[in-house]
Amino acid sequence: MAKSIILDCDPGHDDAVAILLALGNPDIDLLGVTTVGGNQSLEKVTNNARAVLEKAHAPHVPVHAGCDRPIVRAQEVAASIHGESGLDGVELPVPTRPLDEGHAVNWIIDTIMSHEPGTITLVPTGPLTNIAMAVRMEPRIVSRVKEIVLMGGGYHVGNWSAVAEFNIKVDPEAAHIVFNESWPLTMVGLDLTHQALCTPAVQRRIEGIGTDLAMFVSGLMDFFRKTYQDNQDFDDPPVHDPCTVAYLIDPSVVTTRRCPLDVEIHGELTLGMTVADLRGPEPPADQCHTQVAVNLDFERFWDLVADAIETIG
Amino acid sequence: MAKSIILDCDPGHDDAVAILLALGNPDIDLLGVTTVGGNQSLEKVTNNARAVLEKAHAPHVPVHAGCDRPIVRAQEVAASIHGESGLDGVELPVPTRPLDEGHAVNWIIDTIMSHEPGTITLVPTGPLTNIAMAVRMEPRIVSRVKEIVLMGGGYHVGNWSAVAEFNIKVDPEAAHIVFNESWPLTMVGLDLTHQALCTPAVQRRIEGIGTDLAMFVSGLMDFFRKTYQDNQDFDDPPVHDPCTVAYLIDPSVVTTRRCPLDVEIHGELTLGMTVADLRGPEPPADQCHTQVAVNLDFERFWDLVADAIETIG
Amino acid sequence: MAKSIILDCDPGHDDAVAILLALGNPDIDLLGVTTVGGNQSLEKVTNNARAVLEKAHAPHVPVHAGCDRPIVRAQEVAASIHGESGLDGVELPVPTRPLDEGHAVNWIIDTIMSHEPGTITLVPTGPLTNIAMAVRMEPRIVSRVKEIVLMGGGYHVGNWSAVAEFNIKVDPEAAHIVFNESWPLTMVGLDLTHQALCTPAVQRRIEGIGTDLAMFVSGLMDFFRKTYQDNQDFDDPPVHDPCTVAYLIDPSVVTTRRCPLDVEIHGELTLGMTVADLRGPEPPADQCHTQVAVNLDFERFWDLVADAIETIG
Amino acid sequence: MAKSIILDCDPGHDDAVAILLALGNPDIDLLGVTTVGGNQSLEKVTNNARAVLEKAHAPHVPVHAGCDRPIVRAQEVAASIHGESGLDGVELPVPTRPLDEGHAVNWIIDTIMSHEPGTITLVPTGPLTNIAMAVRMEPRIVSRVKEIVLMGGGYHVGNWSAVAEFNIKVDPEAAHIVFNESWPLTMVGLDLTHQALCTPAVQRRIEGIGTDLAMFVSGLMDFFRKTYQDNQDFDDPPVHDPCTVAYLIDPSVVTTRRCPLDVEIHGELTLGMTVADLRGPEPPADQCHTQVAVNLDFERFWDLVADAIETIG
Repeated sequence: MAKSIILDCDPGHDDAVAILLALGNPDIDLLGVTTVGGNQSLEKVTNNARAVLEKAHAPHVPVHAGCDRPIVRAQEVAASIHGESGLDGVELPVPTRPLDEGHAVNWIIDTIMSHEPGTITLVPTGPLTNIAMAVRMEPRIVSRVKEIVLMGGGYHVGNWSAVAEFNIKVDPEAAHIVFNESWPLTMVGLDLTHQALCTPAVQRRIEGIGTDLAMFVSGLMDFFRKTYQDNQDFDDPPVHDPCTVAYLIDPSVVTTRRCPLDVEIHGELTLGMTVADLRGPEPPADQCHTQVAVNLDFERFWDLVADAIETIG
Repeated sequence: MAKSIILDCDPGHDDAVAILLALGNPDIDLLGVTTVGGNQSLEKVTNNARAVLEKAHAPHVPVHAGCDRPIVRAQEVAASIHGESGLDGVELPVPTRPLDEGHAVNWIIDTIMSHEPGTITLVPTGPLTNIAMAVRMEPRIVSRVKEIVLMGGGYHVGNWSAVAEFNIKVDPEAAHIVFNESWPLTMVGLDLTHQALCTPAVQRRIEGIGTDLAMFVSGLMDFFRKTYQDNQDFDDPPVHDPCTVAYLIDPSVVTTRRCPLDVEIHGELTLGMTVADLRGPEPPADQCHTQVAVNLDFERFWDLVADAIETIG
Repeated sequence: MAKSIILDCDPGHDDAVAILLALGNPDIDLLGVTTVGGNQSLEKVTNNARAVLEKAHAPHVPVHAGCDRPIVRAQEVAASIHGESGLDGVELPVPTRPLDEGHAVNWIIDTIMSHEPGTITLVPTGPLTNIAMAVRMEPRIVSRVKEIVLMGGGYHVGNWSAVAEFNIKVDPEAAHIVFNESWPLTMVGLDLTHQALCTPAVQRRIEGIGTDLAMFVSGLMDFFRKTYQDNQDFDDPPVHDPCTVAYLIDPSVVTTRRCPLDVEIHGELTLGMTVADLRGPEPPADQCHTQVAVNLDFERFWDLVADAIETIG
Repeated sequence: MAKSIILDCDPGHDDAVAILLALGNPDIDLLGVTTVGGNQSLEKVTNNARAVLEKAHAPHVPVHAGCDRPIVRAQEVAASIHGESGLDGVELPVPTRPLDEGHAVNWIIDTIMSHEPGTITLVPTGPLTNIAMAVRMEPRIVSRVKEIVLMGGGYHVGNWSAVAEFNIKVDPEAAHIVFNESWPLTMVGLDLTHQALCTPAVQRRIEGIGTDLAMFVSGLMDFFRKTYQDNQDFDDPPVHDPCTVAYLIDPSVVTTRRCPLDVEIHGELTLGMTVADLRGPEPPADQCHTQVAVNLDFERFWDLVADAIETIG
């Protein structure tokens, strides 16, 4: 049976690929997309999410806009990586379906509370503002969701500071809330996603699919490669966000290690760091609800992405 | 024309008096009461709010329950001051009307957005969790409300630490959010409310009204006096929360001073301090949206409270 | 018998007056002057201290230079108040005696340890760097000094931020160290020193003394008045530092209140605030080693200063 | 020509081995040992340092006691690792030479200032209190020392918290001072020293030397193994401190990577973390004065240690 997920995102080049993987893989049932200010403004990323769904022939998937800024801190966007639109480098279609009414936070709560307990997985790939707000509005969602698998953070790697990743650093208080609730939480951080590089060979393979959508993805990757080369000393761009969905499709794509996790909200050099306690042996599952992603099966990961793009057509 | 207010509270002995003042004074139109975990758990203070409305023959006033804990920090209640129920010292009636459906945060947003701009005043007398959440869910409320008049903080006085007051200290991030929005904000802090003492003479006057409600208030004050004597070195209890409503009824009851205000969310000794910059001359209104309450007209304040109790009957 | 003091300072216009008061009053025995980077660089304030002693016919008083910057934070000087030289507005004499050898911190330690216990009073009127370093180098000085009477901080007043005073804010860790040692400590803060205004009448009285030194002081006050008018919204300059010496000469010049005191070293808005716990009654002396200065006897204070200037001749 | 070093330490089982390596290797000239409160109280570690020198027939090496506690924070010792004496597990000889007079901080300053510039290397293996105090007392030492090679911190490994190491965490402000001065600084952190395990094979080899001193070292390792097994989930104890000296004897024993380094002094979860910025390529030497130790040549390291023990005899 397909896994029901809510994708809470801020597209974003790699968010777009995560949407496509969720749409194109038969083991995922994408209940809806919610958006949050992050890589770009809420207005822009919401438009981008709708455009990607349109491009993927999936305008039926509901999209709800959420919070437009972090809970406590001033907003910071990633225009240096994702461009002025948040999805620079390609032409975006105009969505045919209007934006759904209802705030993302309320829609997340209502969806979780109206489904059977233990059936819905939350997949946040942007700042955790919406998820944190939902938890504070309705604490019962914590025990109702199946698990939360998020892109963000890193136990040994940072990108928005020496030791912090963008999604967590821009709304550290939201992350602190989400990491400290008792739900099963998998952090797919930079340690893992920096292995998900879109190499030239990978990109040629995607282009080989030959569809308009495949060329759209390739266009995204061209822009993404350029900004990662210019700003982050990478040759190829790490395609972070779909790693979460890939892990849900097939857990063997990503090895994990169980460990206590928390988020620093007071440090000066370490603000927004996801602090993993990796000392000693791995704790048993009943004593630790958090785990980190460690190693990616590179070939299998890109197989899943390419298959999804091909399946969507 | 009466001022339309939303009273966001955590009854609490002084919150109860604030409710009564809002109900009994013809210049106030109490649109509804929203509750927030604070002096006691959300469940208890919500029950208390409904019981007070019942006691005051006002079961028609809607009550919406809101957030049950602070946004970031662990919850802390004020049982040492308000007892185990949050309203110890009196017998509470059983509410005849069920609790209204809908989360307080959504109800606050919907009420503000559905009324004419500039017509609704927010009167928070507990932790600012609900108000902060509402602002982050719907930023447009900031320019829609008329003003916010809150009980909390202090520019020179603390009670939950040397320099911080309970409402602000238990959810400093919420207060930080609320103080930093651009709405006109009046902080009725401990500097002012420690002047609103329920002296024996005041209490005898209230008892002299002779109604069941008056005796109910007197019972509250007996308990409140005792805990303030035991825990805070006061002879008479300061009745904080109704000072906000009194100021709205008649601004001349409370003198104010305009000054920049902010909330410390990182200090160790100063966590939750409301930092007022009182250096130099008072800034002009168009350059400063915040002000602090300074001096109370003691006689006039208690006149208003006594009149309200009498009016309710 | 005269009180033996070590004046640890960063002249500075008001430090200069403190030196003169210590020199010219028979109840004070000025063992030596130590300097610390503060109002201006260490080199400048050390030169100023020597020049003031020269001007006051007291080149015999030893001067030892100390720390040139705060312990942890980057250096910040008060050129906006004291000018480029740290003592702008007058012509400074060239010192006839060379600067004494030996670091101020070592000289403070050696002087305390070589005198009878309980005989030496420390009078810091700049950042507390030297004193904090001395305590960490030689912890036994804490029980050897008689008391410490310092200019700095404020329980309700700030000048270098809304709630912090310059001396404490520029080296808050040093202040934290000094306030947390067990010696009797009197904080003569802005609450008190903002009462020590050099009004035009006061200045005319000083000028009336007619000596070259009196005119030198008047010149200092001219400059000080100007910078306080331009930068701090004062009509007349508060002459902070000599208040410490005046209190030692005659405790009745300054009323005090015993209360717990500590220094915030982590806050954002409150960094360097001296947090006084003024709740409840004054604690007994054996339970609280710290006190704050509250009210100044304005007339008596300026009498002491004028007398000292006249005595020096 | 032998390298002149000052070993600033808090023996400590591994500090003891560092002393022996410095004494027994011909390429090191141990100018003196200074002590600092750390693994145990200053009194204990000073006694231990003297006892180790006595045991190694080197009572001529001067020992100066330094600071007894961290600059800002309350003291914390590592009795769980080093026992009540700081050097539990062996019998310590009584030193024949009295403790040298003069505070370690002054002795460090005087030694550096009286030697040719660029000739002295500082080797701190305890909290950085003494070194930080020396820098603040006499800033000129920064440009006078050749380099500083310290044991402490870790870029990916912690032991006193998830992300902080003991020496840095117990006096983070001191470390912050030392890391931010411009001298060439090599951090030999846990990433490296956790490779310096005293395996049973290593220990048998040391015992095979057959001297009283070799058995003394073996006794230290027995105790150290036990506490590391009981408290830190290690099979064999990591012998941290001599890695610094080994690197100075032969830089090829330790590979390094140049990167910006700083110390977190405000975080809650990350207090005392040594934050290394490992993003992007290694910066050129003239743009970065700090480097971290990465890989240990295990065999060569223990060769050096064993040779030193044998040489001492």
